[in-house]
Parts: sequence; structure tokens; C-alpha cells
Amino acid sequence: MYITCLDVEGVLVPEIWIAFAEASGIPELKKTTRDEPDYDKLMRWRLGILKEHGLGLKEIQATIEKIDPLPGAREFLDELRTFSQVILISDTFTEFAAPLMKKLGYPTLFCNSLEVADNGEITGFKMRVEQSKLTTVKALQSIGFETIASGDSYNDLGMIQASKAGFLFRSTDKIKADYPQIPAYETYEELLGAIKKAMEEK
Amino acid sequence: MYITCLDVEGVLVPEIWIAFAEASGIPELKKTTRDEPDYDKLMRWRLGILKEHGLGLKEIQATIEKIDPLPGAREFLDELRTFSQVILISDTFTEFAAPLMKKLGYPTLFCNSLEVADNGEITGFKMRVEQSKLTTVKALQSIGFETIASGDSYNDLGMIQASKAGFLFRSTDKIKADYPQIPAYETYEELLGAIKKAMEEK
Repeated sequence: MYITCLDVEGVLVPEIWIAFAEASGIPELKKTTRDEPDYDKLMRWRLGILKEHGLGLKEIQATIEKIDPLPGAREFLDELRTFSQVILISDTFTEFAAPLMKKLGYPTLFCNSLEVADNGEITGFKMRVEQSKLTTVKALQSIGFETIASGDSYNDLGMIQASKAGFLFRSTDKIKADYPQIPAYETYEELLGAIKKAMEEK
Repeated sequence: MYITCLDVEGVLVPEIWIAFAEASGIPELKKTTRDEPDYDKLMRWRLGILKEHGLGLKEIQATIEKIDPLPGAREFLDELRTFSQVILISDTFTEFAAPLMKKLGYPTLFCNSLEVADNGEITGFKMRVEQSKLTTVKALQSIGFETIASGDSYNDLGMIQASKAGFLFRSTDKIKADYPQIPAYETYEELLGAIKKAMEEK
């Protein structure tokens, strides 16, 4: 029995922090793990910036509501869900992703969560589990699923390589060159076809 | 981080074999695990009856398409999915459940799968995992989720009791009497309220 595990940012929706930095007019929020590899440190810095600008969860969600999924993502996901169970796995936070999940027809999303005070201030965050993508795929395998996985980044490689079938989607030239054995696709049509084909192989 | 795990038959849709027996006019298919406690034996007997009547997967799905979710189930699920991740866990088969999942807006379903020959004949079945409900809930807990579970039958008690919060829904008088410590609800409104309340307790 197959289940498809998809990365979210870069695959179905834009990178949320970058889109948020643009939509909110706070360019320094474009800083990513490329600039600050310590994720915990990066997140605390981001929360500090949000607080500085007086942005609580409500204001942030209002801005994220203006961000749209990538063109064709909803149609891709709608079609995929007719023939495969699908879990989205992301390192983002439920509360940030919520407006985008609504636009995608509420697929199931496994990600992290924020700690929010009664006044709406984001006071902290809680990561669901270490190496969330690989760990989640392994847990699904432990309950009888064969997994198919796709993503665009380094942190997707674990789940892609641990799966029965795995695909890069709109990845970087560097990753594609470093992992030539992983099929790499650029369009939803190609990815849909590859998932279908993998499910037919019994 | 919470995730809600719901039983399907009796909670969101009618008992599929019973509804199918009625819709197809094959009353003997109403036989359940109450009559034949050996599930494997029961399923093989059911597949024999289907073959006898010349019913392949296509014909069965056409009949199941006539069955509707329980009144209010779609609205309940739509509302629940706005504030909680949801996994449906069922002992039925993906291929039988598919027409009903479409009517429910394609929630994520963890169940079993059929083996189908090229001519459409159902030749066998594959159970995903032993004690699928409890095992699935435990796997979700192992990747950082706190689970909330609800169901109507004996085979739901494991996941209900292993969860942070668990509720009986439209259960039998016998189960409700035997497990008075488990809150029991009859309406979707009550169940929705109980899930919301459980998620607010941190």
C-alpha cells in the first residue's frame, strides 16, 4: 500500500519566509539557513524581528493569506489525491501554513507548531520531531506503507532515498548534479506520471 | 501538536458491507465478524460470494458510489480539518472506500488494500498492519504527535485508550456500559466540541 510524502515549500507553495518578507516589507526576514545554519538560532532571531515590528500571529496570518500556492499546485494535488494517500511534510509551522492549506483543499500536513500567547504574540516554537521528514517516512513504513517521496532541498534527500520511489522536484542544479541517480522533474505533469508509474510497480 | 484519528464506518459512513449488501441485493453479504469472528475467513467467503455473482471491482465501486456518507459527516469533517490534522483509520479497503472518500473531500485514509486482477476480479486482499488502529496511533505518537481518537466499536478501544483524549461516537449500549470512563457522544456537534476542548488543554 502506497502513500505519497511531499515537501511543501518550493514544491506546492513558495518559500513562506521569503514570500512573507516581501509581502510584509521586512527584507531582513529573507535570511535563511544558508545565512544562519543553526535553525533554532535563526527562528529565535526571526521571532525577535516579528516582535520588533509588532507582528503577532493574527497579523502574520493576514499577510500569509495574500500568498498563493504555486501555479498548478492545487490541481496537481487534487488529481494526486484521487489515486494516492498524501501526506505533506514540512519544517514550517501549522499556524503559518494554515492559510495556504485552505487554498490547497486541506491536505494532511505534518509540520511543527508555534507557542502563542493570549495576546497573539509568538513566544516560541516546538519542533515535532528530529529529522522530521526521514523520521515520518520511516514511521509510515513501520505501519505497512510503501512510501513515495518528493522534494526540492537537502533536507528532503533522507526521505527520498529511504522511499520505494523518490523524486527531486524543481531542485537546484547542485543537488541534481550531486544526486544524478534521483529522477528530477520540473513540471507537475511529470511528477504525477512518475508517482503513478511507481504505484503500478508491485 | 495534536492529530485527530477517526474510525470511518459507523462514524462518517455507513457500514460498507451492510450498505453494499442492501444496494446490491445480496443479503448474505450482511454477515459480519459477529457471525464469523475469523476476519480472514470472512473476507475470503465474501470474495467468493462476489465472484459467484460475477462482481468485479468496477461493479462493486459502481454500487458503492450510490452509498452516501452519514448525514452531516462532510460538514463535520470540513470543520474539523480547519483546526486539526485528521487521519481516518479503517479496516476497510482503499478501493471500496474511494467513492465515499471523494464525497468526503478526500481526507487522508489509512486502511487496507485489495489485490485485483487485470480483468477486475478481486483475487485477494492485503491487511496493512496488525491491530491497525492502535499501531497507527502509536506510530503517530512516536513522531511527536499527541493523538485524539474516536470510534464506535470494540476495535476502536485500543486507539481511544492509548490517546491523549478519546471518545466513543454512536457506540453500542454494551460498550458504553463497559467503558463508562470514556466520554460517549451521539452528535457531530458534541464530538467537534470535545475535540476542540481537548486541543485547548496544553
